[in-house]
Formats: sequence, C-alpha cells, structure tokens
Amino acid sequence: MIRHTVVFKLKSPNNSLEEQNFLNAAKKLANFPGVKNFESLKQTSKKNNFDFGLSMEFASQKLYDEYSNNPDHVQFIQEYWLKYVADFLEIDYEPLK
Amino acid sequence: MIRHTVVFKLKSPNNSLEEQNFLNAAKKLANFPGVKNFESLKQTSKKNNFDFGLSMEFASQKLYDEYSNNPDHVQFIQEYWLKYVADFLEIDYEPLK
Repeated sequence: MIRHTVVFKLKSPNNSLEEQNFLNAAKKLANFPGVKNFESLKQTSKKNNFDFGLSMEFASQKLYDEYSNNPDHVQFIQEYWLKYVADFLEIDYEPLK
Repeated sequence: MIRHTVVFKLKSPNNSLEEQNFLNAAKKLANFPGVKNFESLKQTSKKNNFDFGLSMEFASQKLYDEYSNNPDHVQFIQEYWLKYVADFLEIDYEPLK
C-alpha cells in the first residue's frame, strides 16, 4: 500500500467561491482508476501554514504511476492545481516493516 | 476525529542501531491513552527530504491535549525526540465538511 498525500494552501481567500470550485474539482480525483480511501481534509495544526490536504491510497507503484499519468489527472493539474494552489508539499507513506 | 501526523528525518544513519532504538520507542506511543489508529510509516516521496512518519487519531481535541501533556509523552520528547530527530513537520487533519 502506498498512501499519497499532499498538504496545500490556496491562492484564493478562505470560504471563497474559487476555494469551493477547487475543492469540488479535487474531490473528483476519488473516482480516478486505482484511487482508494480518498480523503478531502482540513489542515488544523498551527505549526505549519497549510490549510487543506488530500490523501489517497494505491495498491501498487504501478497503479500510482498510472494515476499520475492519467490524462484526466494531467488536466486537473493544468486547469486547477497550477492555477489555484499557492504552496504545497507532497508526502507519501508506506507501512514501516 | 483529529489525525495528528508528523513527518521526520533522524540524525542517525539509515538502518543504524540508533534508528531502530528510536523507532521502537516511538511505536510505544500507540499505547498512550486516547491514541487510535497509530501507524509507523516510511516516507517514500522523492519530493521531500523526510524518511519516516507517525500518524495517530484522537476522538476529540480534549484527548489530543491530554496526550500532548501526558508525562510519558513529555518524557518521550525529552529522551528520544529532541535527541534523535534532525528535522520534522507536524500536520494535523480533520475531515473536510
């Protein structure tokens, strides 16, 4: 299992229409092939400056790679991620043996 | 639900005895009052410099605060965290309504 997470901050103000548009588009990633246990999250620690998070799991690196290269994912990155996101950090986890 | 996570890098070399000592001590946090769904994780993305992660969930902020202030947790921070950890980032999540 690979858990792919990204914590991020948007350019748009809190509770704006742009924020809602972005979050609605992001939630559709849940339906992409290979994606399991998708979560839309609010980041609440005061020890960093990020406001939101996404978390999803893949059964294998192959499925993760296919998701990354999926044209619908590439389109999401172009149409939403690059336009709306001000800062982000990707963190991926696997169980520690 | 509050998911408390921390991603980190140790001072000690990969696969060292110190690394194993630290990870063994960290796993005992799973048994602290209030901690649910504890996970010891390996950080695998090449897009950041962290090597490990811990994830745990609390049913309420009160239980999270009690964990943070638990003398056994404070002792873990003093005896292990401050001595072994080179860099870290805390990220906390709640479900997005």
